[in-house]
Amino acid sequence: MNPYDYLEAHREEFLEELKDLLRIPSISTLSEHKPDVQRAAEWLRDHLMAIGMTETRLFPTAGNPIVYAEWLGAAGAPTVLIYGHYDVQPADDPENQWLSDPFEPVVRDGNLYARGSTDDKGQTLTQIKAVQSLLASGQMPVNVKFLIEGEEESGSTNLYPFIDEHADLLRADVAIVSDTSMQGMDNPSIVYGLRGLTSLEIEVRGPSHDLHSGMYGGIVDNPLHVLVNILAAMHDEQGHVTVPGFYDRVLTLDEIERAELGKTPFTMERFRSETGLEVPWGEPEYEMQERLGIRPTLEVNGLVGGWTGEGGKTIIPARGLAKITCRLVPDQDPWEIEELVRQYVAELSPETVKVTVRGLHHGKPVVVPLDSVFMRAAVEAYEFGFGAQPVFMREGGSIPIVASFQDVLKAPVILMGFGLPDDNLHAPNEKYSLECFYRGMQTAVRFYETIGQLT
Amino acid sequence: MNPYDYLEAHREEFLEELKDLLRIPSISTLSEHKPDVQRAAEWLRDHLMAIGMTETRLFPTAGNPIVYAEWLGAAGAPTVLIYGHYDVQPADDPENQWLSDPFEPVVRDGNLYARGSTDDKGQTLTQIKAVQSLLASGQMPVNVKFLIEGEEESGSTNLYPFIDEHADLLRADVAIVSDTSMQGMDNPSIVYGLRGLTSLEIEVRGPSHDLHSGMYGGIVDNPLHVLVNILAAMHDEQGHVTVPGFYDRVLTLDEIERAELGKTPFTMERFRSETGLEVPWGEPEYEMQERLGIRPTLEVNGLVGGWTGEGGKTIIPARGLAKITCRLVPDQDPWEIEELVRQYVAELSPETVKVTVRGLHHGKPVVVPLDSVFMRAAVEAYEFGFGAQPVFMREGGSIPIVASFQDVLKAPVILMGFGLPDDNLHAPNEKYSLECFYRGMQTAVRFYETIGQLT
Repeated sequence: MNPYDYLEAHREEFLEELKDLLRIPSISTLSEHKPDVQRAAEWLRDHLMAIGMTETRLFPTAGNPIVYAEWLGAAGAPTVLIYGHYDVQPADDPENQWLSDPFEPVVRDGNLYARGSTDDKGQTLTQIKAVQSLLASGQMPVNVKFLIEGEEESGSTNLYPFIDEHADLLRADVAIVSDTSMQGMDNPSIVYGLRGLTSLEIEVRGPSHDLHSGMYGGIVDNPLHVLVNILAAMHDEQGHVTVPGFYDRVLTLDEIERAELGKTPFTMERFRSETGLEVPWGEPEYEMQERLGIRPTLEVNGLVGGWTGEGGKTIIPARGLAKITCRLVPDQDPWEIEELVRQYVAELSPETVKVTVRGLHHGKPVVVPLDSVFMRAAVEAYEFGFGAQPVFMREGGSIPIVASFQDVLKAPVILMGFGLPDDNLHAPNEKYSLECFYRGMQTAVRFYETIGQLT
Repeated sequence: MNPYDYLEAHREEFLEELKDLLRIPSISTLSEHKPDVQRAAEWLRDHLMAIGMTETRLFPTAGNPIVYAEWLGAAGAPTVLIYGHYDVQPADDPENQWLSDPFEPVVRDGNLYARGSTDDKGQTLTQIKAVQSLLASGQMPVNVKFLIEGEEESGSTNLYPFIDEHADLLRADVAIVSDTSMQGMDNPSIVYGLRGLTSLEIEVRGPSHDLHSGMYGGIVDNPLHVLVNILAAMHDEQGHVTVPGFYDRVLTLDEIERAELGKTPFTMERFRSETGLEVPWGEPEYEMQERLGIRPTLEVNGLVGGWTGEGGKTIIPARGLAKITCRLVPDQDPWEIEELVRQYVAELSPETVKVTVRGLHHGKPVVVPLDSVFMRAAVEAYEFGFGAQPVFMREGGSIPIVASFQDVLKAPVILMGFGLPDDNLHAPNEKYSLECFYRGMQTAVRFYETIGQLT
């Protein structure tokens, strides 16, 4: 049986296996889910063994385990490193927006709904199932190494040193990352640029305990007032970030690349349907796809302080906290950006309170070359799998570890993403299109067959 | 037995009774405590009956019941209306600051620690025990009506119409409110001015659901950015409120009253010990006691939006919410202030999001006359109870219903407070000094004996 027939024959089985993996709430940012994270790692290790990988291992780390597996039986053929992550975002649901349990996957209208369905368990399993079909058909054209981490959503803290220490083990001719989206099912696209990331917390501490707002209001500086003043000073009225030096290293695009990006405009129709909003926002001198792809941002992801329950509580709270993410573009440096924010916050902080900036996660922005043999093979594989030639896009999201693949492993990276723009990643009702799942497997099989011919 | 000996003989018993009442977590702002609120009301009704009040009733309202009790056996003598409240603030404790269970009262160093100990169960019981001792000694010199509500901490919503409808029932020659603080045990003070209050919520709604901050960051206005911009625009750098028209009706004090207020300065020593801070804040042209007593404020009491748990979640949240209280001084109008804030927020709101202002509670500021026979009797009673002549103070807090006693019942009000500045009301480790409890009873007994002589 050739691998495509094998894929076809096992559609139902593959879907059930994906559901099994999605039922494990492996949320890496919440410590109470530690056992689930471990369970997801073990599930993958056992699964990779079952499909015929010759060596499988769980590498313990200071955080969550790293799943490694290899099959190196294609002597003389290229070696592929396939990256994925088994951890997922939280699925808190204070406004009751999930239509079904985030950890009880359900198919509705050809989509599989669950936390992690597209990001990244579904896409990771798409790759695993492609490899399985090649192994099962006895036609495995390349050597394969899987590297599947459990901390992508919490900063890949332990994967960076792991890559440094295991550069030999991970050595490959090309690294494949299936953790991005296409512009649409029938007009596929390949992401060649990803934003980097610096995430931070800003904490303002005032009085030693919450104070009565009547008894002390007027003589005690309110930590929440200081916090909103600091945060409001981060943008100007047009949406530019006002942290001094923030844009200093941002590369400008030449006209050719701007024109290429202009081929995949972010339409108002898409804006409306994906956000539920009518009026876009952002730097007026850039088009929407440029604001997302080539411009950095600073977003407040969360804010909390004082009384947040029902009704009122008339206090001056003891503290306030903001969580912030900066999305970065070449050649911004995530650690330098943290330092710039830290300096600016220090300038903005009055002596009435104590303000602390804590860096959380850092990831470099990345752009992959468009003119490699691997990229040409990827373009052909998408045409085969999705019936149209893919266009090149920059995406606003971040997969920080991609820069390490380039820097440490010196491997070209292909971002072989199979998500769709309305997959609701990091949001309620995350989904993965079953069509993307199956066509993605075909695309991946075709890609490995093609690069198997390279020597 | 004279009433003072009776008080002395029943100290332990009174303390145990107060503890019983404090064990009921009658938090009026949290709907899950509805049964506790009911239980506290019933406890008081039964207790008032037990001490010899001739008529006791629970008046149901759309919210929490109002406890009423009367004893009208002193023909020809003045009638006193004694106000208190049996509801308490929430005792949420995310930072583990309570040294003991807020609803399991404990005596440490002569203080009784529990939520509601000073505000206002302890002070309410101080009055009840004073009346009990007069009744028990057969020397009751005045007619007494008790009016004890269960919604003071949630805006006295149902007490306002109750007073309008039951003006005859409540008619009295003087209204006594024991719900304020003195400057110290050995240098007592009587509050003659209270700030009013307008409390509000500001909600900003953006996208229909939380969005991935990488996929949409740069094209979608972040509701938390809008919220912090609005809130940051509420004050200037010196701490003045910038809502247009906010200060228009604020009365300025003459030099005589400013000099009187200057007699009870808010010292830096007190500032440090009560707040844990080194640097005060506020309008530089006013002294600290003036900022609290005669100047209005606008405080953010709580802020929430987006991801507030451990670690990060890289989202543009769908909404953000702020809770605000304005403390008002004569002649500001709480409903007009709400309207001014509403208009200003509308001006500040961009078309990218939906901003809603919801008014929660309103209370008028109040100043009581210093030259009444009742005030003279109160001064003498404090001298008797606390051993020193009390000074007059304005307090920053609010007891909105006091204005209704003046306006509807036409009764002069005496704010016969027995709290201390470090009682931590609305904060962790709320306490009531046992010395204040006992001296307060003596003061109240003396006051009723004195005014019983008036005809």
